Amino acid sequence: MTLKMTGTAASNGVGIAPVYIVDKPNLSFEKQRISDSSAEIERFKDALLAISDELKGIKEAAAEKLSKDELAIFDVHIEILNDPEMFNQVVTRIRSQRINAETAFEEVISRVIREFESMTGNKYMQERATDFASIRDQVLAKLEGKSLPNLQTLDHPVIVVAHMIGPSDTSQMNAKFVKGIVTEVGGRTSHAAIMARSLQIPAIVGCKGIAHQAKNGERAIVDGFSGTTIVEPTPNQVKHYQQIASQYAAERLEWAKLVDSPSLTKDGQQLTISANIGSSNDILAAVDNGADEIGLFRTEFLYMKSEHLPTEEEQLQAYKEAVESLGGRTLVVRTLDIGGDKPLTFMPLPHELNPFLGYRAIRISLDRPQMFRTQLRSLIRASQFGRINIMFPMITTLEELQAAKKIYYEERKKLRQDYPKIGANIKLGIMIEVPLAALYAERLAKEVDFFSIGTNDLIQYCFAADRGNASVSYLYQPLNPPFLKLIAHIIKSGHQHNTTVAMCGEMAGDRLALPLLMGMGLDEYSMSATSILRTRSMMKGLNIKECQQLYQRAVTECETATQVHDLVEKWLIAH
Amino acid sequence: MTLKMTGTAASNGVGIAPVYIVDKPNLSFEKQRISDSSAEIERFKDALLAISDELKGIKEAAAEKLSKDELAIFDVHIEILNDPEMFNQVVTRIRSQRINAETAFEEVISRVIREFESMTGNKYMQERATDFASIRDQVLAKLEGKSLPNLQTLDHPVIVVAHMIGPSDTSQMNAKFVKGIVTEVGGRTSHAAIMARSLQIPAIVGCKGIAHQAKNGERAIVDGFSGTTIVEPTPNQVKHYQQIASQYAAERLEWAKLVDSPSLTKDGQQLTISANIGSSNDILAAVDNGADEIGLFRTEFLYMKSEHLPTEEEQLQAYKEAVESLGGRTLVVRTLDIGGDKPLTFMPLPHELNPFLGYRAIRISLDRPQMFRTQLRSLIRASQFGRINIMFPMITTLEELQAAKKIYYEERKKLRQDYPKIGANIKLGIMIEVPLAALYAERLAKEVDFFSIGTNDLIQYCFAADRGNASVSYLYQPLNPPFLKLIAHIIKSGHQHNTTVAMCGEMAGDRLALPLLMGMGLDEYSMSATSILRTRSMMKGLNIKECQQLYQRAVTECETATQVHDLVEKWLIAH
Repeated sequence: MTLKMTGTAASNGVGIAPVYIVDKPNLSFEKQRISDSSAEIERFKDALLAISDELKGIKEAAAEKLSKDELAIFDVHIEILNDPEMFNQVVTRIRSQRINAETAFEEVISRVIREFESMTGNKYMQERATDFASIRDQVLAKLEGKSLPNLQTLDHPVIVVAHMIGPSDTSQMNAKFVKGIVTEVGGRTSHAAIMARSLQIPAIVGCKGIAHQAKNGERAIVDGFSGTTIVEPTPNQVKHYQQIASQYAAERLEWAKLVDSPSLTKDGQQLTISANIGSSNDILAAVDNGADEIGLFRTEFLYMKSEHLPTEEEQLQAYKEAVESLGGRTLVVRTLDIGGDKPLTFMPLPHELNPFLGYRAIRISLDRPQMFRTQLRSLIRASQFGRINIMFPMITTLEELQAAKKIYYEERKKLRQDYPKIGANIKLGIMIEVPLAALYAERLAKEVDFFSIGTNDLIQYCFAADRGNASVSYLYQPLNPPFLKLIAHIIKSGHQHNTTVAMCGEMAGDRLALPLLMGMGLDEYSMSATSILRTRSMMKGLNIKECQQLYQRAVTECETATQVHDLVEKWLIAH
Repeated sequence: MTLKMTGTAASNGVGIAPVYIVDKPNLSFEKQRISDSSAEIERFKDALLAISDELKGIKEAAAEKLSKDELAIFDVHIEILNDPEMFNQVVTRIRSQRINAETAFEEVISRVIREFESMTGNKYMQERATDFASIRDQVLAKLEGKSLPNLQTLDHPVIVVAHMIGPSDTSQMNAKFVKGIVTEVGGRTSHAAIMARSLQIPAIVGCKGIAHQAKNGERAIVDGFSGTTIVEPTPNQVKHYQQIASQYAAERLEWAKLVDSPSLTKDGQQLTISANIGSSNDILAAVDNGADEIGLFRTEFLYMKSEHLPTEEEQLQAYKEAVESLGGRTLVVRTLDIGGDKPLTFMPLPHELNPFLGYRAIRISLDRPQMFRTQLRSLIRASQFGRINIMFPMITTLEELQAAKKIYYEERKKLRQDYPKIGANIKLGIMIEVPLAALYAERLAKEVDFFSIGTNDLIQYCFAADRGNASVSYLYQPLNPPFLKLIAHIIKSGHQHNTTVAMCGEMAGDRLALPLLMGMGLDEYSMSATSILRTRSMMKGLNIKECQQLYQRAVTECETATQVHDLVEKWLIAH
């Protein structure tokens, strides 16, 4: 019987294939008294060794397919398996309490997991909890002689259906055969969603109950545009979605032709479409997808991986490499944006009740200027090797901006004693992501060369709704009329002072937002690399004057985000 | 030698008296092997009994002085002391490990404290951690034969100096003799600060190092206006501050004469000054302090104390009593504002990473309408007994407001089948505390009779700074020019549609904000009861037209909160 379910559309495209349920076996066990503790210890040791060997094997086999970061996860897991402290604790329990290895191991590792999980303000530590939970399942399965689902052994096209998909599932996934992903939990920014978009696999998240209602081998359609899953579709439905899929494939071929084209509107105005990236590893994909620039280069990766504060030379090297690999394109670098939810090994930060409203980004940089000065010095020095612009995150007040600029000019002045004109080509900008800065854009614009509107944060503060919290996700409303007016105010304020205005939040790559933003006069659209060509293609069909009229209609005729949504949908169809 | 230190001014007034250091004795101990475990268990049992008896004695002696809530804290502590589970765990440890009672008890209670403390999203549970920590100290002190400081035994005027002051310190404090309070930690919203303001004791918080630098018996001056503490002052300093103190006492006598006067400006315009209260217990103090109305009646107390969802009849009774005790004054009731940081026994809420950006207030009410309907029905019914207005907290979008109104009118319609005109005198309003609602005030005003601007939340969202987080407290800037303009926009938008505009955040009682708010045309100023008479007196001296000019100067001549601060200070001196 045909079953239709909806969830959150997480990655565009249509996939049709048999269902493959990623279901963990029941790993529960009885606490047992054992008589031969040495034999039990041997059994435990064998299980650890076997998994360690398996992981090494998978890692080698996947070495070419995966990035350095993805491969590093295997090392973390292998390290956990070989941890002598954990091993000794389990062995002591087996020996002194004469209990089976499952019980002893479960007690030891569960305590570790709980400890990591209790660090609720700390996403990094919570990820470590996921690593340990993965190891727990692998060891228990091995001890019980059960096998865990393994996405690496896929050899035919499937729709992956799961309660949840984590990094340890996807790191070994053979993406070639995955035609679609449907999970029961998670939002648009969950691991599964981000991974699916980067691999360009159609995906739906938050599709409640799917893992119980669909069965292995049943045919399924995943419509990643609308969030609809159909299990056991009718022949007509299959035909309909095959058409959409081939239409989309054809569209993508068309888009691919635009990879070397400028980003032009229908009436010939040239805008900029750029990429948001998280580390130098992503530059190649950005260029391959036709990015005009890198509109947001996050620098957290340099700090979060490091055991010490990265030195000026280390950073210089990283920025130099990044800008040199860009073939003359501009690299817009955001200075360090860490905080309660992004911890550093070498700098303990306070635990906070509301880290998104806490001590982070420029607030830390101004409070601990030495770290900030080092980063600015290396950026100024790296500007000798290409076009680097610098922007400050989380600027709230005029005083903060002036303090940050003062530090920047002090460092530049020091460097100019040796290199007289260094940094002359750098443009300075700020993220507009705090409501107060948006409200004061007319004054802040006088201070900088460019704005970059960070809509993810700006929306979550304007609507007082954490973007990662599913209970309030209905308040992610970039199309809400007063919010649109705020964006227009930022753009207009910027232009009054010759300040270029970019946008680097999720909204910049939103199909429905594009004509509105063009109508407001936004200069630069920075998005995930995989959205660039689609956006450039769409931009080519849109006339600025008509977009201006659309924006005016949206803020005069509409009172809710839903009304704007419907207006733009209709307008696009009529175009 | 004279020592001058500064902290955060937390409660107005000047106090001069000898220092009384609330210093906990060193309660550290050695882990010891014991030979006679039965004797050790007896020693532990005796300690528990002795403290339990002491607490009962203090409770009885304080019965008349303290409120029901304050007395309940003693019961909680006595209950902890008599908890059989905790007792058994300690006894088992003493017996099986042959360790001293201090070690066994510390291990058991520390685990409990850590568990409560780890519930970081939950203020209620964290308060429970404070209760257990207090019990730990009392038991350890008793076991070691040491005595803890006891503020109940004060018999002469003192300045209380402490690292921190918690509820268990203040519940037994003899306030009559406390002329001032200085703590090393805490902000303006810490327990010590709130308690000092409600008892009208001059106080300074966050005065680092004071507990080590001042000595018992040294004379000290606490200047709660500026946040300055002077230990061992010069005779001239004493004279100077005695003058300020007597001037302030004279002022307060003047203010007291205004208790029955209307709230008039110098040019004869009548405004409203009302009180924010947390439960019916606070009504008397509000009326005694001359409140024109109750501008914010929080209803959380009905829910947070209850083991079950309060019924319609229970709520009706509470609202009826409240409004009847007001002598015809209006009671503005805010519907339930709970969330991740204010839990309910009968309704588990999800743990959230950023509870201030989470599932709370009207978001919960609309998601679980049955609870909301019950509250609205009891409010509509209570409106037969006095003037009740209703306001919805955390309204963000127009759709939320319309959904809340729809539910309200449905319930009113049902009730009107029996009582034809019930609720006709109720005015409906919303809190403006989410930036998006502030930006859309011109549209929302069409929907309601009144706005109440909640500046505490509005500031924390506009500045993206948790008001409870000391690291970002510098971003509490009600006087920042773009923020002032946003307030003016809300007021103007309200007035365009005959919507009254009130303010019920901390800013409404701020001396420097008052002339600016009067200049913007704010109708109603709702504040803590103890600020009402001071504000009414100040209002009497201010001319609306001049305030309008001041506001215009603030938003045209100033660019930062500091500049506005200085402008208003100078303007007030010139007046």
